Amino acid sequence: MANVLEIKSQELNTEEFIKEKSEEIAKIVGSGFAINALSGGVDSSAVTMLGHKALGQRLKTYFIDNGIMRKNEPEEIASVFKGLGVEVAIIDAQDKFFNALKGLTDPEAKREAITQTFYKDVFAKLVRDSKAKYLLQGTILTDIDETVAGIKRQHNVFEQLGIDPQEAFGYRIIEPLVQLRKDGVRKLAQGLGLPESIFSRMPFPGPALAARIIGEVTVEKVNIVRSATSILEEELRGCGAFQYMAILHNDKVTGMRNGKRDFGMQIEIRSWDSIDARKAIPTKLSFDKLDILSNRMVTEVPGIVSVTYNITSKPPSTMEAV
Amino acid sequence: MANVLEIKSQELNTEEFIKEKSEEIAKIVGSGFAINALSGGVDSSAVTMLGHKALGQRLKTYFIDNGIMRKNEPEEIASVFKGLGVEVAIIDAQDKFFNALKGLTDPEAKREAITQTFYKDVFAKLVRDSKAKYLLQGTILTDIDETVAGIKRQHNVFEQLGIDPQEAFGYRIIEPLVQLRKDGVRKLAQGLGLPESIFSRMPFPGPALAARIIGEVTVEKVNIVRSATSILEEELRGCGAFQYMAILHNDKVTGMRNGKRDFGMQIEIRSWDSIDARKAIPTKLSFDKLDILSNRMVTEVPGIVSVTYNITSKPPSTMEAV
Repeated sequence: MANVLEIKSQELNTEEFIKEKSEEIAKIVGSGFAINALSGGVDSSAVTMLGHKALGQRLKTYFIDNGIMRKNEPEEIASVFKGLGVEVAIIDAQDKFFNALKGLTDPEAKREAITQTFYKDVFAKLVRDSKAKYLLQGTILTDIDETVAGIKRQHNVFEQLGIDPQEAFGYRIIEPLVQLRKDGVRKLAQGLGLPESIFSRMPFPGPALAARIIGEVTVEKVNIVRSATSILEEELRGCGAFQYMAILHNDKVTGMRNGKRDFGMQIEIRSWDSIDARKAIPTKLSFDKLDILSNRMVTEVPGIVSVTYNITSKPPSTMEAV
Repeated sequence: MANVLEIKSQELNTEEFIKEKSEEIAKIVGSGFAINALSGGVDSSAVTMLGHKALGQRLKTYFIDNGIMRKNEPEEIASVFKGLGVEVAIIDAQDKFFNALKGLTDPEAKREAITQTFYKDVFAKLVRDSKAKYLLQGTILTDIDETVAGIKRQHNVFEQLGIDPQEAFGYRIIEPLVQLRKDGVRKLAQGLGLPESIFSRMPFPGPALAARIIGEVTVEKVNIVRSATSILEEELRGCGAFQYMAILHNDKVTGMRNGKRDFGMQIEIRSWDSIDARKAIPTKLSFDKLDILSNRMVTEVPGIVSVTYNITSKPPSTMEAV
C-alpha cells in the first residue's frame, strides 16, 4: 500500500470530501452491492453515511451483536440510523464470540479470536448471502500508525499488515477515512448530518468490552465490566474527556464486607484528555467525583471491592489496557 | 483467650503503662531470657524498648533480614537502636524466605510460607540457640480484630487462632501491646524515648514487600517493588498520610516505548488517611504529585508502563492488597 497523505482536521473541507469519497465509492462499487458493519462508533457511523449517500439501498449495513457491546448499544444505534433513513440489521452472534474467546488469556490471542470470528465466521457468511463484493470500513490514520509500529494489532487493517483481504476472505475492503484522524472524522460525521450523540461519540475499541477485561473473557466478566462501564458513562458524560473506560482486572485483591474477608475484584478507571489519541494525559477528575465512582462500583457491581484511577500518560501507557 | 480490654490512646497513661508492663514482663521471665524479633515498625520497636527496660541484657533482639524489607532497612533500624543502647543482631535469612515463597501465588499461602519460615525455621533456631523461653511480640488490638473476623491472617496471633505456641513451637509468647491500637502504641513509643522516625513510623506489614506483590514473589519482583516503594516514600514523606504503599500487579498491560508496543507491568499506589487503620480513605493527593509519582515510576523502575492510584475507602477495601 502507498503512503497515506494525511488530511488534518482544520484543512478538511467536509463538503468536498463527502462529494469526492461518495463518487469514489460509487465508482468502485459500480452496479454491485456493498456491505458494512456498523459498531456505532464515529468511524463506522461516518462510513455508513458516506456509503448510504453513494449507494443508497445497495449498501447493506449490519450491526453484529457480539455479546461484548455496552448496555443496550445495538438497539440504540439501530434506532439512531433508522431516524436518518438507514436500515441497520442486528445480527445476534453472541454465542459464536464467547465460544471463540473461551480459555484465551493473551491479549493478542483474544483480539485474533474476535477478528477471526468477525470476519471468517459471521461477516463472511453475511457477505456471501448478500452477494456484495465490497466491504466499507472505517479505518483511520491512527489505526495504521499504531499497527505499523507494532503497538496494537487493529482488527481492520489487513492491507497494512500485508494480508490480501480479497484472497483471504473473498471480498475487497474500501477504507475512505484512512487520511483522517479522530478529530477529522468527527467533523466529517457532523457534516454528514449525524447527531451529536454520534459525532461526539467517545472512541470504543473494536474488541469492545473484551478489550476491557484482563485475562479470560466470560459472560459473567462481560456483565461486570458492562455494569461498571454504564456507571462510568453516567457519571462522566459531559466531563469533556476524550475517552473514559472501566477495566476489569484478573488479579484479585483483599477486601472486607460486613466485617469478613472478601477476596474480590478490582476495576481500573482510565479517563483521557487528548486531541487525537496519539498522546493523552489522565483527566484531572475531582476527588469528590472519584469517590462517587468508587462508591457506586463497590456497591452496585457484584464482586468489586477495589477501584483505581490510572495516573500515567500516553506514552508510555496506551489508552486501552489490553 | 479472655476478651481484651481496650485502652484508648487518650486514656493511656504512658508512664504507668510502661511501669506496669515492664514489671509484668520481668515477673513472667523471672531469671530467664527472652528473645524478640524487631522489624523496625512502631509495634515491635515499642516492645523491644519495653523488654529492654524490663530485662536489659536478658532480652536478645534480632532483626531477621528476610530479603523482602525496604531499601537499607535492616542497617538503618539496627543503627537507631544502637544509639539507644540496644544491641540488635541482623540475621541474613534471605535465601530461606525466597525458597519458601517459590511458586506460591495465593496470598494466604504466601503469608503462611513467611510465617512458617520465620517461626519454625529461622526464629525457632535462634530461640533454641539462645536458651530463651520467652518471645516478646508486638501484637496490637487491630491485629486481633481482623484475624478473628477472618479478614486477614496476621502472622503473630497464634493464641487468637487457637494454636498453643508453647506446644507448636516450644516457647511462650508475651504480647504487652494487645490492649492498644496504633495511635496508643505511637504515644507509648514516644514515652519510651524512641525517636520520631520510629514513633511516627508508617505501618509496614509482617510479610513486608511480599504483601506488595500480587502473584509469585521473586527476587526480581521484590527489587521492582522495593524501587517503587523507595520513590513513593521519597515523594510522600511528610504528606501527613497514615500509610502509603506501592503494589506490583501480576496482570500485564499494554504500553509503548519508542513507538513500539511494550507489554509491561503496572504499579498501584495506595495512600491512606486514617486514625487507627480500622477505617481509611484515600489521601487527596494533587494531580501534580500523582503525575510526578507516575513519571518517576515509569522512568526509573524497569518494566513499569502504567501506574494507578487507589480511590476506594476501607471498607470495602483493605489497606493492603494481598
